[in-house]
Amino acid sequence: MAEYELYYWPGIPGRGEFVRLALEQGGADWVDVARKPASDGGGAAAVQRVREGALGGLAPLGPPALLHHAPGGDVVVAHVAAILQYLGPRLGVVPGDEASRLRAHQIQLTIADLVFEVHAVHHPVAVSLYYDDQRREAARAAAAFVGERIPLHLRYLDRALDSNPAGGRRWLVGSGPSYPDLSTFQAIAGLRYAFPEAMRHHEKRFPRLGALHDAVAVLPRIAAYLVSRRRLGFNEHGIFRYYPELDLGARPAHRTAASPRTRTRTKAGRRVPGRRPGK
Amino acid sequence: MAEYELYYWPGIPGRGEFVRLALEQGGADWVDVARKPASDGGGAAAVQRVREGALGGLAPLGPPALLHHAPGGDVVVAHVAAILQYLGPRLGVVPGDEASRLRAHQIQLTIADLVFEVHAVHHPVAVSLYYDDQRREAARAAAAFVGERIPLHLRYLDRALDSNPAGGRRWLVGSGPSYPDLSTFQAIAGLRYAFPEAMRHHEKRFPRLGALHDAVAVLPRIAAYLVSRRRLGFNEHGIFRYYPELDLGARPAHRTAASPRTRTRTKAGRRVPGRRPGK
Repeated sequence: MAEYELYYWPGIPGRGEFVRLALEQGGADWVDVARKPASDGGGAAAVQRVREGALGGLAPLGPPALLHHAPGGDVVVAHVAAILQYLGPRLGVVPGDEASRLRAHQIQLTIADLVFEVHAVHHPVAVSLYYDDQRREAARAAAAFVGERIPLHLRYLDRALDSNPAGGRRWLVGSGPSYPDLSTFQAIAGLRYAFPEAMRHHEKRFPRLGALHDAVAVLPRIAAYLVSRRRLGFNEHGIFRYYPELDLGARPAHRTAASPRTRTRTKAGRRVPGRRPGK
Repeated sequence: MAEYELYYWPGIPGRGEFVRLALEQGGADWVDVARKPASDGGGAAAVQRVREGALGGLAPLGPPALLHHAPGGDVVVAHVAAILQYLGPRLGVVPGDEASRLRAHQIQLTIADLVFEVHAVHHPVAVSLYYDDQRREAARAAAAFVGERIPLHLRYLDRALDSNPAGGRRWLVGSGPSYPDLSTFQAIAGLRYAFPEAMRHHEKRFPRLGALHDAVAVLPRIAAYLVSRRRLGFNEHGIFRYYPELDLGARPAHRTAASPRTRTRTKAGRRVPGRRPGK
C-alpha cells in the first residue's frame, strides 16, 4: 500500500497536477488512484466515491483529495493549497520555518485563484455546460483575461521573487526550489499552452518567470517525471485549454456598444473607493 | 496601536467580512484601517499601498490582508482562508487540535470557492467591467449558479455538519462555534440577500444551515457587532449583490438553441471520465 493516495479525475493534468509535482519532487511513495483500471478500484468512479464521502470525515466538494496513511492514522486533505501545505514539510518541499510556510501558502492560494480564473475563461457561464455552449461569452472573457489578468498574475509572481532575497531572485521561498516554484512551473506551462501568442507578448516583461520554469523542469526528479507516463499532457478537457480563438494577444477587454463604460483596475488613481468587487 | 490591522476595501462587506467576524468573535484588538479617514492613513488608498508592498515582504495581489503586531515581530497574511487559519488558534475561534484546524481550513477554502463563484455570476466576463457591460452573460451564469451551484454548496455544508458528531449537527468543527460557522453565517446571509427567491426554495432542503445562521447571529459578541456601526450592510458594489433579474429561482442552466448539449455534473452515472474540468 502506497503511503499517499491521490484522488483526481483521470485524463487531465488539471488541479491534480500541482499535487503530483510536489509528490514527485518530494520522492513520495504515492499512487494516482483514478488512473488505475476501474477493475482495480480506479477510474473516475474512484473520485466520485470520494466526493460522496468514501474516505470518511469531511467529504470534499471536488477533487483533488489526498489520503495519507500517516503513522498516527489516516488523514484526508482536499483543496490543492491545503494539500500542498500539508505535504510541504513532510516531503521537504518547503523550508521548515513558520514564515516560509506561511509565505508559500499565500503564493499557492494566489495561484489557486489564477487557476480558477483560467477555467472561467472557457467556462464563463457554467462549468456544467460545454465550451461550445458558451463560446461567445468566452471570447469576451478571454479578452479581459489575456489583456489584464495574465499580466497581473505574472507581475505578482515576479515581484514575489524580489521579496525573497534568500532565493537570489530565482526561487519563490527560501534558498531553493519549493512547492510554489513547482506550481509556478505548471501555471506558466499551462498559460503557454492555452494562450501561446499572449504569453509570448507578456513574458517579455517577466523573463525571470521563464527562467524559473526552466529551472524547475531540470530538477532531476521533475525531469524524470516529465518524460514518464505518469505525466499527463495538457488537453481540451482540463483547466488549461488551447482554443485559438481565445488566444487574443494583449488587447484590452471588449467594450460593448450599448455600455461603453470601463473601469481601470490597474491604476490606483482611477479607482472609485468602495466600488471594488473585493478581489 | 491595535494588535491587528485589517486592510480591505471600505464600503463593502466583501471578502473582508469573513475576517471581521472572526476578529469580533475572538474579541481581538483590531482596526479596520481603510475605514479610517484618508487624513488618518485610511481610505481605499491604504489598501492600494498594501497591494504595492507597503507592509513589506510578499505583496498581496489583492485584499484582504492582515497585519499582526505579534510579540516576535510583525506578520502579514493575505487571503481569507490563510488569515483565518492564522487567527483561529490565536483568537480561540477554532479548536486547538491539528485535525480540527485542518478540517476548518478545508471548509473555509470551499467557502472561498463559493465566494469566487458568486462574484463571477455578476461579473462573468471581467472584474474590470461594470455589471451593465455584462448583463446578458450574467443572466446565463445566474441560471446555472442558482440551479446547480447553490444547492451543491449548501449540500456540502449540510453534510459537513453530519461529519462532525461532536457538534451535534449544529456546528461545523468541534463542539462549539468556530470560524467556519461564522463564514457560513455570512455566506448564507449573502446568498439570501443576492438570491432571495432561489434561497427560499433551496433552503427548504437544508434547514440546519438556517439554524446555524441563526445560532451565529445570537452569539453575544456577534450580536453586538451586527448592530454596531462596524458592520457593513450588503450593497451592489460587493460580492453578494441583489440584481432581481439574476434571482432566477431554481431553473436549470439555459441551453442555447445553437448548442443544445448539456452535461449533468450532479449524477455520477452520467459523467464522462476525463472530461471534467477539474473542479
